[in-house]
Amino acid sequence: MASMAAVLNKTPFLSQPLTKPPASDLPIAAVSFPSKPRRRRGAVRAGLIAPDGGKLVELVVDEPRRREKKHEAAEMPRVELTAIDMQWMHVLSEGWASPLGGFMRESEFLQTLHFNSLRLDDGSVVNMSVPIVLAIDDEQKAGIGESKRVALVDSDGNPVAILTDIEIYKHPKEERIARTWGTTAPGLPYVEEAITNAGNWLIGGDLEVLEPVKYNDGLDRFRLSPAELRKELEKRGADAVFAFQLRNPVHNGHALLMTDTRRRLLEMGYKNPILLLHPLGGYTKADDVPLSWRMKQHEKVLEDGVLDPETTVVSIFPSPMHYAGPTEVQWHAKARINAGANFYIVGRDPAGMGHPVEKRDLYDADHGKKVLSMAPGLERLNILPFKVAAYDKTQGKMAFFDPSRPQDFLFISGTKMRTLAKNKENPPDGFMCPGGWQVLVDYYDSLTPADALAILLSHDYEEKNEDSDPRRKFKICKGEIIHGVVHKSGIFLRCGTCGNVYLSNLKMPGYKYVTGENLVFMNQNISRIQIDSTVHVSLRLISSGKRQRKSFLLCTASKGDNLGQF
Amino acid sequence: MASMAAVLNKTPFLSQPLTKPPASDLPIAAVSFPSKPRRRRGAVRAGLIAPDGGKLVELVVDEPRRREKKHEAAEMPRVELTAIDMQWMHVLSEGWASPLGGFMRESEFLQTLHFNSLRLDDGSVVNMSVPIVLAIDDEQKAGIGESKRVALVDSDGNPVAILTDIEIYKHPKEERIARTWGTTAPGLPYVEEAITNAGNWLIGGDLEVLEPVKYNDGLDRFRLSPAELRKELEKRGADAVFAFQLRNPVHNGHALLMTDTRRRLLEMGYKNPILLLHPLGGYTKADDVPLSWRMKQHEKVLEDGVLDPETTVVSIFPSPMHYAGPTEVQWHAKARINAGANFYIVGRDPAGMGHPVEKRDLYDADHGKKVLSMAPGLERLNILPFKVAAYDKTQGKMAFFDPSRPQDFLFISGTKMRTLAKNKENPPDGFMCPGGWQVLVDYYDSLTPADALAILLSHDYEEKNEDSDPRRKFKICKGEIIHGVVHKSGIFLRCGTCGNVYLSNLKMPGYKYVTGENLVFMNQNISRIQIDSTVHVSLRLISSGKRQRKSFLLCTASKGDNLGQF
Repeated sequence: MASMAAVLNKTPFLSQPLTKPPASDLPIAAVSFPSKPRRRRGAVRAGLIAPDGGKLVELVVDEPRRREKKHEAAEMPRVELTAIDMQWMHVLSEGWASPLGGFMRESEFLQTLHFNSLRLDDGSVVNMSVPIVLAIDDEQKAGIGESKRVALVDSDGNPVAILTDIEIYKHPKEERIARTWGTTAPGLPYVEEAITNAGNWLIGGDLEVLEPVKYNDGLDRFRLSPAELRKELEKRGADAVFAFQLRNPVHNGHALLMTDTRRRLLEMGYKNPILLLHPLGGYTKADDVPLSWRMKQHEKVLEDGVLDPETTVVSIFPSPMHYAGPTEVQWHAKARINAGANFYIVGRDPAGMGHPVEKRDLYDADHGKKVLSMAPGLERLNILPFKVAAYDKTQGKMAFFDPSRPQDFLFISGTKMRTLAKNKENPPDGFMCPGGWQVLVDYYDSLTPADALAILLSHDYEEKNEDSDPRRKFKICKGEIIHGVVHKSGIFLRCGTCGNVYLSNLKMPGYKYVTGENLVFMNQNISRIQIDSTVHVSLRLISSGKRQRKSFLLCTASKGDNLGQF
Repeated sequence: MASMAAVLNKTPFLSQPLTKPPASDLPIAAVSFPSKPRRRRGAVRAGLIAPDGGKLVELVVDEPRRREKKHEAAEMPRVELTAIDMQWMHVLSEGWASPLGGFMRESEFLQTLHFNSLRLDDGSVVNMSVPIVLAIDDEQKAGIGESKRVALVDSDGNPVAILTDIEIYKHPKEERIARTWGTTAPGLPYVEEAITNAGNWLIGGDLEVLEPVKYNDGLDRFRLSPAELRKELEKRGADAVFAFQLRNPVHNGHALLMTDTRRRLLEMGYKNPILLLHPLGGYTKADDVPLSWRMKQHEKVLEDGVLDPETTVVSIFPSPMHYAGPTEVQWHAKARINAGANFYIVGRDPAGMGHPVEKRDLYDADHGKKVLSMAPGLERLNILPFKVAAYDKTQGKMAFFDPSRPQDFLFISGTKMRTLAKNKENPPDGFMCPGGWQVLVDYYDSLTPADALAILLSHDYEEKNEDSDPRRKFKICKGEIIHGVVHKSGIFLRCGTCGNVYLSNLKMPGYKYVTGENLVFMNQNISRIQIDSTVHVSLRLISSGKRQRKSFLLCTASKGDNLGQF
């Protein structure tokens, strides 16, 4: 079977669908389909589902007018975009957020926060659950003055877009965070990356992007726009398109669910259901597997025949990740309508993560699918919730969990999977194809820190080891990447979905806390630990988690900074 | 002119509408009307606006079946209601939340949190922005077991209602708070009163209330149900009903706006616009003026001729108050549709308050009216935002603020008004009718604490007096009521819309912190300070707010508890 890369590179997609016979050994009704697809507002029909607002928004300036627009942009006040801003600009430019025509103005921002939807001029409603906004600070606002247009520039100062008919309004960070995530606890990855230190103003307006967005990372060929996807899906003659959002390596449980979904759609009478396997390509948190490695892994999965390239379109969804659970899953679904999907697969705890300071999941695992099924503007999308897949020891493969014989099943969480790969251990046979697994092992192998320092954390651990303090819930796996947040009295080290561990300033002799716009600890050599530093930590010795163990050692390597020996 | 009480008591309402000539001295366009009323879904028409869902829900058991239902209730598992639960039961029983038929099940709760609206079976949408839920704890849940019905009982154990076809689901407190208030900061009044210590489960179901809800506080005659209000409004032949929600004393600025609204409605061609003056009667925070005093004050305002009783219906809205700003104002508006109002007046920062720990308003003052104008399910209600009224020194009366001559206007905030009344000072002539003002003075006079203790807070004040700590923002007015929240290391005292002041446990010798279900400080005499204690504090001496002042004194009186001398 051809590799995914080859398939995508050459054709770019196979145009001859090949209907795969249903797998007869799968449990019946493993996927909880609604009793009949919801057909309100003409959902299922011949041809692809219409984009939100009726027409796909495309905001890239036509080739003949680019030169002129670039000249205009050179004369305007400038707003420099962060990497995440650029990703949202990409999302907007291709119409994933149709009918949104640019970064949100206040009326759109408020409707998103309060109603997760936008009312259009004709009275109809489209879903829009995460704010797509552009923050600016006081200085940038002053620089814009009375201008009604601004040029958006990349980190090299090159204009990449124009925002016209602009509106500047307050950035209510706390309220935005609370209403989007349902918590304001410190340690939400997107918040720390893109909101906490962002400006206190938001700027909305109509967007014109000067060139199609490219990343030049070898993966651009996978970045098909909604228009390109629709063209490909039409070329293949898809009569049902089922989208699968993912930001993790594909294991055989995922594959089971995708093949089972296809089987069920065929049973329902669809002749040519196509899977849109759609890994998220924008910002992800530090302990997620990076896009390039995930794409390698997906390629192996297709190569190994776990999924059928003939009926699968693999493409990258350019959105950044919020980890905002039931709120964000609506965005993931809505964007796929614009790409032509009329079925959306939703699993347990979509877009969820562990609570950043409490020892529990941030969201109820069932809320995502419930909210999705009731969301305004998604009535015409068929939501496909699925049952949990687990490793069936009796069959030696992934299967849908059978509650009548729980002892036969082994649950392998994402954390467990990562831990095994980090430790170069193998999962049970049949969990993931060997080629895909090797990619994961290679990835974690590439992470060994260059510059390791030992930190004795016993003092802090003891100090915080009280029932009322969530920070005591510290667990760390070998090779885990730790993210540090600077507070006045020390640093909170955050480890994936685990709770915080606290490194007090007492443990950083020579380092002094420095206030200012960017909080920082600094020593005499101007070595700095600041709020956006990423500290790579690899564990040497770990406590058993029992109270009697008084200390454990971390072996850390700072990225670019030398912390010195503690 | 007849007093309001007399009018309501005898007739209960005048049935002969009397059209008042428009007041010619009011500024034009002071009320920002939409250019034309929104008429989508048949908004403005002859007859009253239809209730949400088409039919007014009424959940009180018919007289003949009450005896039988009470017998049934006696055999069921019981859930005891708090005072606020009883208020919500009252709200539900009369159909203010139509078409909601009982405490919310999870699907309604989730739609409220995420979408501020409910989708009905026919695909139509009604607004529903605040969760109307009933919390139970683990023990109550265990007691209910497999029963599909429970009896709701009052604090004396008497069954007051039956909940059938029940659904018990998790109470995600943090998420509920974040999504409803847009913050999780400690010190939100409703949260501390009704959520923090509530059970970890919610129970929803269909409600049957065994008797009409009465409070026997002398004000029941003002508590007209939506059905009774509709009957009265129809009897009066109202062709427009404009509702004014309030939870504060009426001053002449409010009166100006209400009379001006009526004038404008007459200009628009309505023949008989009726004002629904609708004070909120449920839970309010400790420093709001209590309902009984507000009703006395409203009575004086009508007696003094400030509002015309002939075209005004005064009634009590039984809902508790959330202080959830843009989220809550939707509930206030939606409930009035069910009472027959098709116009809703919205002011600056509706249902807002100061941020509980930061020195700013919790909500943007304009967000309430913006959100209201875009809210799903409120399309057929005409939203009337109004300009700010202030005291015009040149006219010696309240008038709409004229930005061309700001020097002529005096803004008298609610806080300022309360401070003046507490200090028995008079506001400028023309701010409020003298009879109404005297009611306020009498109210604050009644508050002198019986049992006063001096607390020296200097130590805590100094300790917390740092730029990075919001708790330093301590301001308090003489006679202010302080609310205390117990934390392990001390007590946060909260004062109305002001920030927190912190009383550390070091300042409470003899008192020990006791963990358990209810956090409490306790001394050897079993004198307790716990999370729901209300502490009345009257200020003796207050620092100027400048740093050089090292101390100030508070004079406190505990309600029911003897704190002892610190």
